[in-house]
Amino acid sequence: MDKPFEPECTFSERALQLTSSAIREILKVTERPDVISFAGGLPAPGGFPVDVVRQAFDKVLVSNGRAALQYGPTEGYSPLRAWVADDLNRKGAHVAPDQILIVSGSQQALDLLGKVLIDKDSKVMVETPSYLGALQSFSLYQPRYESVASDEGGLIPEALTPANAQGARFLYALPNFQNPTGRTLSRQRREALVQQAARLNLPVVEDDPYGELRYAGEPQPSLLSLGGEVGAHIIRMGSFSKVLAPGLRLGYIAASRKLIDKMVQAKQATDLHTSTLTQMAVYEIVKDGFLEQHLPTVRELYRKQCGYMLDALQREFPAAATWTRPEGGMFIWVTLPEGIDTTQLLQQAIEEKVAFVPGQPFYANAPAPRNTLRLSFVTVPEEKIRSGMATLGRLIKAQLG
Amino acid sequence: MDKPFEPECTFSERALQLTSSAIREILKVTERPDVISFAGGLPAPGGFPVDVVRQAFDKVLVSNGRAALQYGPTEGYSPLRAWVADDLNRKGAHVAPDQILIVSGSQQALDLLGKVLIDKDSKVMVETPSYLGALQSFSLYQPRYESVASDEGGLIPEALTPANAQGARFLYALPNFQNPTGRTLSRQRREALVQQAARLNLPVVEDDPYGELRYAGEPQPSLLSLGGEVGAHIIRMGSFSKVLAPGLRLGYIAASRKLIDKMVQAKQATDLHTSTLTQMAVYEIVKDGFLEQHLPTVRELYRKQCGYMLDALQREFPAAATWTRPEGGMFIWVTLPEGIDTTQLLQQAIEEKVAFVPGQPFYANAPAPRNTLRLSFVTVPEEKIRSGMATLGRLIKAQLG
Repeated sequence: MDKPFEPECTFSERALQLTSSAIREILKVTERPDVISFAGGLPAPGGFPVDVVRQAFDKVLVSNGRAALQYGPTEGYSPLRAWVADDLNRKGAHVAPDQILIVSGSQQALDLLGKVLIDKDSKVMVETPSYLGALQSFSLYQPRYESVASDEGGLIPEALTPANAQGARFLYALPNFQNPTGRTLSRQRREALVQQAARLNLPVVEDDPYGELRYAGEPQPSLLSLGGEVGAHIIRMGSFSKVLAPGLRLGYIAASRKLIDKMVQAKQATDLHTSTLTQMAVYEIVKDGFLEQHLPTVRELYRKQCGYMLDALQREFPAAATWTRPEGGMFIWVTLPEGIDTTQLLQQAIEEKVAFVPGQPFYANAPAPRNTLRLSFVTVPEEKIRSGMATLGRLIKAQLG
Repeated sequence: MDKPFEPECTFSERALQLTSSAIREILKVTERPDVISFAGGLPAPGGFPVDVVRQAFDKVLVSNGRAALQYGPTEGYSPLRAWVADDLNRKGAHVAPDQILIVSGSQQALDLLGKVLIDKDSKVMVETPSYLGALQSFSLYQPRYESVASDEGGLIPEALTPANAQGARFLYALPNFQNPTGRTLSRQRREALVQQAARLNLPVVEDDPYGELRYAGEPQPSLLSLGGEVGAHIIRMGSFSKVLAPGLRLGYIAASRKLIDKMVQAKQATDLHTSTLTQMAVYEIVKDGFLEQHLPTVRELYRKQCGYMLDALQREFPAAATWTRPEGGMFIWVTLPEGIDTTQLLQQAIEEKVAFVPGQPFYANAPAPRNTLRLSFVTVPEEKIRSGMATLGRLIKAQLG
């Protein structure tokens, strides 16, 4: 069948270092319906407003079909850019619509940041641990990572110093319910972080896909809104994946005009623009405040799921294990007693049809602890959380002897 | 308003060489409704099957909404991959579904090719002239271009030699109704090209967005189907932009499994995957043969538009000008008498509210003739083609004195 395709080709240096990610390989196994998977990063489809989406696509195609199916500007659909700017400004930021670039999901924002800000061997600062998808995306542009120390409160602002920030192109951080740890930065740390970033003249990428999914504690101001007061350069990424639906592939980036202009040029070469129809339909959905009605339902769903998982951890995991208690989002981070290797644990767990993600690949630099793991809890029914966690607990306890 | 955004950032080397394209700047001017624009590369919205698209999105969201709104595999929606493979095989190729990667429009295929095949200063071969969007996309990865000689019949296969193909990562070619020239490779040239590529072990990227838009002459076999017989490595790019609608941003790439696997890894880091909903809706549209009913209407529309433009050229342009007579697609390429600079001509034309694209930016290497231009004819009403071409003809004749 593939006779025309046997000849080789010469891959680029960056392509040769690409390998299929651990998460990706695991997800392949966990596609089997008999596996209880805490490995995915998928939002709960029960939270998707299917009918509202259907009506919006229908309305746009009936009322403005030819425009919705035509090429559009690289920057994005103007009313949607204006809505995003308004939404950010309602929450304390000060941005204009021309500081917003619409992207095909947050992952594209990461790629565009890499394209315009990273040279080979240039320094990029990341949390410890950090989001694996961001590391994969930036790594295509071959940076050197500088890992910034974190603790239970997330990134430690004092760990940013003139020495380690020297020459860094940016710091990449997730202040809310971080992927993979579920940790959230306190107001104090946020203020200290933007002040330090301003002093160091260090641009900070604030990736906030989960910010609207808070189900406990007090909402915290964005780095974007705090940064404005102290002159920090904050580049904010947001997404419709977790508040509406990820299959639409829609997100945005807010930044200085100079950076947005450069990213628009890069996006033009990358995919011309994001689907006109999708942008118009999502604008139709959000313009009259639908998210305010919709989000409480999603938050309540996620709060319950998180509770099931925390209960199961308490019940099934050994006393020597510790874990985070997220105030929102989709992930819990578990630290097992030293000596337990979670990559090996995964092999055993898969045999018993349970999956999770070992913590190691989330570390940009050595040393990466081998005894951590990430649990995703939003898509698994309560019963399966119980039985899956019982299996994991048993396997861990068996290793402790 | 933009106080938080004043700080500078350090751009990457590749970002610093990005400049807003001539086409892009021109398109800005031509967005004004009083401008008659032959500059765009937009398909005619009259050809968009709005109602069919609307029904397909509706059907998918009613019958399978949660899946359509969830994350999907990077490779693409399986039934759509299988349909693309079948469609190519019906036209003489031999590819399996796992040799197909679904992309967010052809432009993304160009970016992914650049990512996985181009290192800084590696050689990429292109036609003379070539598609500007491809040059922009590849240029992000900083190749050296080797321009392959072309004549009225398009790319000259004999111009590919062991010397100039030495070390080239690939040849990028548009065999059907090329952008910008409208030229089409004859069967003879196609056969010679794939044979030469096989001998030189040179991968050939066959970009074919317009192939289904043939309104004159005989259909020619794809390089993909011819290449299989001689062992050439053909990487084929296709798009739904011109056969359905560009605003959907949907295309595909067919290649060896090894290259597809690498591009899947690159796409995962680039945007995770293309909209699940869009893929399912387009599959719904194409699966029962809708394109066979729909395309004759589009071809007839484009044939008529092309005729209006050729008539106007004959009537309005000086005898010393020459132009191509495309058998399909959207573009005519005009060569004016030497000494006329089409970039200067554009300045004059814009003042009289007529636009086109000067030929110069389509040349990857010097010398780039200054007396060529590209005319796009599919979106402009007959009356405006007449009056716009009369204006251009008058301006050109005035320069000839």
